[in-house]
Amino acid sequence: MASSSSYTNPPCAACKFLRRKCLPGCIFAPYFPPEEPQKFANVHKIFGASNVSKLLNEIQPHQREDAVNSLAYEAEARMKDPVYGCVGAISVLQRQVIRLQKELDATNADLMRYASNQQSNNNFNYGTSHDDHHQTNYGFSPNTTWNNNPEADDDIQ
Amino acid sequence: MASSSSYTNPPCAACKFLRRKCLPGCIFAPYFPPEEPQKFANVHKIFGASNVSKLLNEIQPHQREDAVNSLAYEAEARMKDPVYGCVGAISVLQRQVIRLQKELDATNADLMRYASNQQSNNNFNYGTSHDDHHQTNYGFSPNTTWNNNPEADDDIQ
Repeated sequence: MASSSSYTNPPCAACKFLRRKCLPGCIFAPYFPPEEPQKFANVHKIFGASNVSKLLNEIQPHQREDAVNSLAYEAEARMKDPVYGCVGAISVLQRQVIRLQKELDATNADLMRYASNQQSNNNFNYGTSHDDHHQTNYGFSPNTTWNNNPEADDDIQ
Repeated sequence: MASSSSYTNPPCAACKFLRRKCLPGCIFAPYFPPEEPQKFANVHKIFGASNVSKLLNEIQPHQREDAVNSLAYEAEARMKDPVYGCVGAISVLQRQVIRLQKELDATNADLMRYASNQQSNNNFNYGTSHDDHHQTNYGFSPNTTWNNNPEADDDIQ
């Protein structure tokens, strides 16, 4: 029967998958806990353990968690869609941005027509019956809705 | 001096990189032409030639060009941004979709206020001075601009 002094932590998911001893300082251990075996299996299948290890060693320790999570996201997407991977999600999002931008342009154009027509009506009414109720402010604030140029905000390469 | 009969095609970028003979039927040759050496170098560095070869063999021949191009896109993105790769572009696009959706919602709300106020004005004027010019149609077509629920269109996982 093993004594408590011979107890060692279970190997990380990467070392268990690769059937090697998980030594202190293992580059994978902090990001591939034993309870998430699939995360490493996916990353290994798509990128290869050696490439992932190299990549993690080339970046700062504080960046490694984000890097592993983005690799795991890409790997899972590639497992689900071997042809397009997460580039499929990029295409969907790009189409969505284009569609929303068109809708926003069309809605802004409608709003412009309403606003200019209301102005004409106000002028007409002031010239004839001076109906003060046309001066109500409806909360329309062009500065918050007119900046609809996607290129002016986020630059996607 | 070599005779014309001994001429062979130059090896594809993958076989040249891997320093092996490019045999007829090479899985890489159609997608990694010799004039684009960086494309294979990137894909090899990020995914590994063996993983790419396996992936190409697991999909239909007509899907391979798209698969290689999406892998090359992902690899280039990971070379430029080792921490986030193309997942960074997904985050930027997701934020852009959220921003555009909010702008569209706000603009639609403004338009609703204009429309309902104009309706009130029409009713008021009909009750008092019967100004027929308020009935002008400004080209506002709610059905084309009101469907602004992103979840109803593209389902991004």
